[in-house]
Amino acid sequence: MSDFYSRLNKDDAVVLLVDHQTGLISGLVRDYGVDEFKNNVLALAKTAKFFDLPVILTTSFENGPNGPLMQELVELFPDAPKIDRPGQINAWDNEDFVKVIEETGKKQLIIAGVVTDVCVAFPALSAVNAGYEVFVATDASGTFSKQVADAALTRMAHSGVQLMNWFSIACELQRDWRNDVEGFGALLSSQLPGYQNLIGSYTGAQRDLSKQTN
Amino acid sequence: MSDFYSRLNKDDAVVLLVDHQTGLISGLVRDYGVDEFKNNVLALAKTAKFFDLPVILTTSFENGPNGPLMQELVELFPDAPKIDRPGQINAWDNEDFVKVIEETGKKQLIIAGVVTDVCVAFPALSAVNAGYEVFVATDASGTFSKQVADAALTRMAHSGVQLMNWFSIACELQRDWRNDVEGFGALLSSQLPGYQNLIGSYTGAQRDLSKQTN
Amino acid sequence: MSDFYSRLNKDDAVVLLVDHQTGLISGLVRDYGVDEFKNNVLALAKTAKFFDLPVILTTSFENGPNGPLMQELVELFPDAPKIDRPGQINAWDNEDFVKVIEETGKKQLIIAGVVTDVCVAFPALSAVNAGYEVFVATDASGTFSKQVADAALTRMAHSGVQLMNWFSIACELQRDWRNDVEGFGALLSSQLPGYQNLIGSYTGAQRDLSKQTN
Amino acid sequence: MSDFYSRLNKDDAVVLLVDHQTGLISGLVRDYGVDEFKNNVLALAKTAKFFDLPVILTTSFENGPNGPLMQELVELFPDAPKIDRPGQINAWDNEDFVKVIEETGKKQLIIAGVVTDVCVAFPALSAVNAGYEVFVATDASGTFSKQVADAALTRMAHSGVQLMNWFSIACELQRDWRNDVEGFGALLSSQLPGYQNLIGSYTGAQRDLSKQTN
Amino acid sequence: MSDFYSRLNKDDAVVLLVDHQTGLISGLVRDYGVDEFKNNVLALAKTAKFFDLPVILTTSFENGPNGPLMQELVELFPDAPKIDRPGQINAWDNEDFVKVIEETGKKQLIIAGVVTDVCVAFPALSAVNAGYEVFVATDASGTFSKQVADAALTRMAHSGVQLMNWFSIACELQRDWRNDVEGFGALLSSQLPGYQNLIGSYTGAQRDLSKQTN
Amino acid sequence: MSDFYSRLNKDDAVVLLVDHQTGLISGLVRDYGVDEFKNNVLALAKTAKFFDLPVILTTSFENGPNGPLMQELVELFPDAPKIDRPGQINAWDNEDFVKVIEETGKKQLIIAGVVTDVCVAFPALSAVNAGYEVFVATDASGTFSKQVADAALTRMAHSGVQLMNWFSIACELQRDWRNDVEGFGALLSSQLPGYQNLIGSYTGAQRDLSKQTN
Amino acid sequence: MSDFYSRLNKDDAVVLLVDHQTGLISGLVRDYGVDEFKNNVLALAKTAKFFDLPVILTTSFENGPNGPLMQELVELFPDAPKIDRPGQINAWDNEDFVKVIEETGKKQLIIAGVVTDVCVAFPALSAVNAGYEVFVATDASGTFSKQVADAALTRMAHSGVQLMNWFSIACELQRDWRNDVEGFGALLSSQLPGYQNLIGSYTGAQRDLSKQTN
Amino acid sequence: MSDFYSRLNKDDAVVLLVDHQTGLISGLVRDYGVDEFKNNVLALAKTAKFFDLPVILTTSFENGPNGPLMQELVELFPDAPKIDRPGQINAWDNEDFVKVIEETGKKQLIIAGVVTDVCVAFPALSAVNAGYEVFVATDASGTFSKQVADAALTRMAHSGVQLMNWFSIACELQRDWRNDVEGFGALLSSQLPGYQNLIGSYTGAQRDLSKQTN
Repeated sequence: MSDFYSRLNKDDAVVLLVDHQTGLISGLVRDYGVDEFKNNVLALAKTAKFFDLPVILTTSFENGPNGPLMQELVELFPDAPKIDRPGQINAWDNEDFVKVIEETGKKQLIIAGVVTDVCVAFPALSAVNAGYEVFVATDASGTFSKQVADAALTRMAHSGVQLMNWFSIACELQRDWRNDVEGFGALLSSQLPGYQNLIGSYTGAQRDLSKQTN
Repeated sequence: MSDFYSRLNKDDAVVLLVDHQTGLISGLVRDYGVDEFKNNVLALAKTAKFFDLPVILTTSFENGPNGPLMQELVELFPDAPKIDRPGQINAWDNEDFVKVIEETGKKQLIIAGVVTDVCVAFPALSAVNAGYEVFVATDASGTFSKQVADAALTRMAHSGVQLMNWFSIACELQRDWRNDVEGFGALLSSQLPGYQNLIGSYTGAQRDLSKQTN
Repeated sequence: MSDFYSRLNKDDAVVLLVDHQTGLISGLVRDYGVDEFKNNVLALAKTAKFFDLPVILTTSFENGPNGPLMQELVELFPDAPKIDRPGQINAWDNEDFVKVIEETGKKQLIIAGVVTDVCVAFPALSAVNAGYEVFVATDASGTFSKQVADAALTRMAHSGVQLMNWFSIACELQRDWRNDVEGFGALLSSQLPGYQNLIGSYTGAQRDLSKQTN
Repeated sequence: MSDFYSRLNKDDAVVLLVDHQTGLISGLVRDYGVDEFKNNVLALAKTAKFFDLPVILTTSFENGPNGPLMQELVELFPDAPKIDRPGQINAWDNEDFVKVIEETGKKQLIIAGVVTDVCVAFPALSAVNAGYEVFVATDASGTFSKQVADAALTRMAHSGVQLMNWFSIACELQRDWRNDVEGFGALLSSQLPGYQNLIGSYTGAQRDLSKQTN
Repeated sequence: MSDFYSRLNKDDAVVLLVDHQTGLISGLVRDYGVDEFKNNVLALAKTAKFFDLPVILTTSFENGPNGPLMQELVELFPDAPKIDRPGQINAWDNEDFVKVIEETGKKQLIIAGVVTDVCVAFPALSAVNAGYEVFVATDASGTFSKQVADAALTRMAHSGVQLMNWFSIACELQRDWRNDVEGFGALLSSQLPGYQNLIGSYTGAQRDLSKQTN
Repeated sequence: MSDFYSRLNKDDAVVLLVDHQTGLISGLVRDYGVDEFKNNVLALAKTAKFFDLPVILTTSFENGPNGPLMQELVELFPDAPKIDRPGQINAWDNEDFVKVIEETGKKQLIIAGVVTDVCVAFPALSAVNAGYEVFVATDASGTFSKQVADAALTRMAHSGVQLMNWFSIACELQRDWRNDVEGFGALLSSQLPGYQNLIGSYTGAQRDLSKQTN
Repeated sequence: MSDFYSRLNKDDAVVLLVDHQTGLISGLVRDYGVDEFKNNVLALAKTAKFFDLPVILTTSFENGPNGPLMQELVELFPDAPKIDRPGQINAWDNEDFVKVIEETGKKQLIIAGVVTDVCVAFPALSAVNAGYEVFVATDASGTFSKQVADAALTRMAHSGVQLMNWFSIACELQRDWRNDVEGFGALLSSQLPGYQNLIGSYTGAQRDLSKQTN
Repeated sequence: MSDFYSRLNKDDAVVLLVDHQTGLISGLVRDYGVDEFKNNVLALAKTAKFFDLPVILTTSFENGPNGPLMQELVELFPDAPKIDRPGQINAWDNEDFVKVIEETGKKQLIIAGVVTDVCVAFPALSAVNAGYEVFVATDASGTFSKQVADAALTRMAHSGVQLMNWFSIACELQRDWRNDVEGFGALLSSQLPGYQNLIGSYTGAQRDLSKQTN
């Protein structure tokens, strides 16, 4: 049995979205294309929504250059706890943040944020030490460069953080398509243009044949 | 005066969308990321819509592996002429296609399509020879690789095709923000996450100050 | 002695090909060139064939947008067990799949599939936990991007999965060229154009000299 | 009318394959992946075959380190003139080579070879000066690096050579799918794994529906 | 004599800095690293200062998401004309902008800006048509991606715009080191860390020997 | 609790800058752009200064081709111990170097240098074995290529070195913005053009509104 | 103390050069440029020579397409044991190879070869299991692609192989420049053009000053 | 007949090597790997030597940070005119430089240098205007980045400069292998490791067969 592997479970998981603020994304994130990054963040958010996972939002100095939380996240999670940290860089240093996590009673943390090497890595490492199973959504987390991201991901991986992407997180939570084929297909289609094209082609092919057979 | 430069004018321009079909995009386009490419194509389409330009759609064998036209384009342009070519690879070889262009009475053609080296380059070069001013939306056109795209774009540039991207096309058509500040801002914001972030931060900053001053 | 290294052995190994379906490859795989990826998958398949390893095929929703299994795999392994999963995303959750593995009595699993972060990583990690020695054929497995692949490969490596490529798998199984020089040479030549060129040049050089000496 | 554009016509075209020798490919070509390059060269060759274009082969020092012509080309064109140049680097300096071209009576030359900056560029530029319309199949031509290829392609483009890729050459020669839908589809499918996947998915979708409707 | 080449002359040149605004740089520029881009823009600005060239600043909607002009430019050129365009996207459409250029009496325009495909390309092409010699400082101009930049630069080059970088502009204006060795050396050293290192090593070597000889 | 994670603490940390000499940077560092690398090194140095951490400088053969220490480091740390090693490649082999570290009484070492695989990796690995907690500032360390850096960083990570970048080091030391909002903001702004732009835009937005409300 | 780190020592080390054969390099190595790779291999070889380390050469089927050992290696090590393996792919399976290693009595193995994933990884992993300390010279080892190399290096690193490059190996063996300043400088200069340039500039600077002072 | 193409002729050509100085290469060249660049420069120099072309050397401030000319060039061309420019940046502004060119009576200039955008582009463009046929050896010319090189090469190509690489220059000068098969083969082999490997394999293959037939 590997010490480094545990399996995500939708009943045990909570999603932490850390500092996805307009200024930070605009000014600092350079390891993903802008279209790709926005889609990835929304994909993770919609995944959380689809599985009804508890979501906890946190920001650092919204009233300043870092900018407000992405508007789409505000709208997707109007009732989620949102911890506006008055100064702590590592969200884990904010007692309210840790407390709302504890109150969920969950032991699996899915974390994404901006920037990867700070806003993600710091609470992720703290959470491992606090006994949580930690999963980082690497492609919904951005930073200055691929080189900076690689260093941060290596640091986390060696400490037991499990590196995943939003799609594998969604699939692991879903477990079986039959739990909701249509809903899950709609989720993928809305955030994966590649998958949307497949569905378009398949539907088209059926329509063609259906014309021919009539 | 350069022979190679003319200025796009919203009263003189028509948009040709060639073979943006789900199968072709999925199976053949590899010079743009999937998120980026979808956003670019929709951006060009919405630009055409915003400026009320005549749009002409054409497809190659929708009833087959190439797949149907992207659903979003169908929905955006329900009344646009749509030429389903029965076999001609170069859309310019299809008389109906040329005829609907001629009927617009416009002399500036904005072309995008899949794949760049065939579905875009062939009609673009034919149109130059037919006396049109031709503008290719390079980033709403995709193909097998960067190397293939570069060869095709070079071939077109040397024949007088003007290489643009959807954003510069939109800006050249708009000419002056004052023609419709809100509308144009909304167009950019919807397709440029980078611009959307700027607006988010600006609005946030105003909200902050407004709180302070009250 | 390293806990992370064990040596592939053709008497102990079984090959699991997971979801190499036309739609998934076409719509989702972007971390390998299309020519390269097809050649890699066929290379792994022919390697399995050459060594007479048990092969187990599995698919996810062949009757849908994911598309059918690559035709070449169907033809290469007409008698292999093929588990069409009715919904389970992690193939290890499908009891039939695990059962046909167990029935082989082998303890070394060679896994490849589409996409790496889900269809490969999930059963690979489950198999490690079930006590198998797991080898992933990284270059016969594809996914959305190099960044996504890197995260998934890191996750697997830290849990004890051994990362290999089809060529090193073939070489490890072969052990000694003398076991079948011609057969093994033909296998490499058919899937490695670089090696085929070497053989072409060598044969040419011999022919030249042979002409000169006669 | 552009001076830089003319349209390929299967009745006017001849294909020149220059020095696709095993040693040169193996030792010198680094601007394309090995799988991709082999597939591209065969694709151009099969295109020539499919359209029954005259093909002229030429080599430089086959009896030496450069190695023999790729075996597949020998087999595809057993009756094609093959000019083994005794020393001329620019094939156009070889009178026999020019003579067999002249004897075809064609005015459009499609050229590919190894290496791009010499074996392709030299005869291409000579042919332009001799009054031919010259089309270079860029992706069936290889050389030391992308930077070297870019310089050579720029030099050719400024002298009137038209840069194309094998796929656009095939499409320009075909003009209309209806000239031979099945044959042309088979050509594309055999050399474009991306297109092969589309056909696989389409066929699969039809089979599915056909099952459902029976 | 080439129609496409003319030589920069410090007595004939004026520098146009178009829309180097904090928001646009932050939100849109992705074809240069952030450190590199800032250094390049300042380098061009300091070059203009060093040669006492007339500098004309212009902005688009400073009072909004585009943000204010980079503070360093404001400070470097407190007395330069600064045209805050009320809406014109192409600065050449603003009569005041053209007028201040005309008033300089210069015929060589050095242009840089954000983004390359719009704020640079539009006035550059207009200026060529108006009879100016136009030089674009490519590396002090930024945009969405390398692909977008390439298309825009190709379009400009074919229309007679001369593509340069800040360093070659500085060198062409300087003509001869002896015009001011120390001043020019200081300019290069302040913006080229690579050159600064050379000077550091040279000075160090001299110090070493000087110690030895004493 | 992870064995691979410990948290930087400004009371426990000392910074070791190893061989940031003009010749070595100029001649050997190729895994970072020159502007980016200079900015990163200065950023780490200013971070050390800001937090008043003890800094230890060391050089290898300043009186020779390696060149003198970067002048900016000399000026930033006029009173720091500077160990000019007479020959030892691994700084840890120099007793004076180890002694000044020991005399600080700190247990956390932040190391950066040129080149990563030697001047950083050797003392970092020695320090781990000597019982220190070691943090490498990867982006203030440079070497021959990305491939060489990756191998060295992998070697260090597997031995317990924690890979960080200057920004995450600064943030970990700061812990809470409220410890000095203005000072920390100035530090970030001076070395992160992306952050500087955010502040510029925010300030601009406030100025705008303030005008409107007056 | 890390289990993953040990320090190279010139009295304990032996160098194994595995299958650096002309055909394999030419046909298969694509993760390094050809100039760079040749220089790296010779650099490692000259390092071994400089430190008088025992060197063991081995080849796989020299009499065939793989080609002979690089001529430079033959000339550098005329008296080294050279094990021409009759068929074993993993050199460790060849008893003679293991025997000559054992006869050196050394416990540290420095391994390089072609291809990394087979000819290097297999004996490296076997040697770890046999109790040796194993160091792979990553940049003197080549293979099909960066992706294949990364998988192989990850596999080795997790099993305890230490990843180094030829330069860090040379530096670790040298320990102190004073052991032979001129000899070591000459070694670096001959294989590192970057270092050679530094020496050229330094010598030039001294010459300059010396002229001035006379 | 193209205005942009003329053919190099060894009786008409002279080689200009501009500012290949150790400091400039070390501090500024970043668009080629260091091994590759050194090999390219030497290859061009040896090509000039092999064809007995007149070579003209020039430097800018050898007595300073730019450093002396590469020592290998000094040794290869002890009798070549060497113009040490006292200040002119564009070598064409130096009357002595132009005069030694004129004295050769040649009309074809092959130019290479550091940096491409200044030391190469300036005299190349001046020479075109002075009526020379100008060929730039792109891969023996280096500069700050690929982007800077691309802009400079585009500028030159549009003015009639022909872009070549050292290998195509050598081949164009050689015209026919039979002019000196051994000499030309030795030239290629010494600077092209890829070609050297081919010769190694071919010689090996002959040796093998020769053993078998005896």
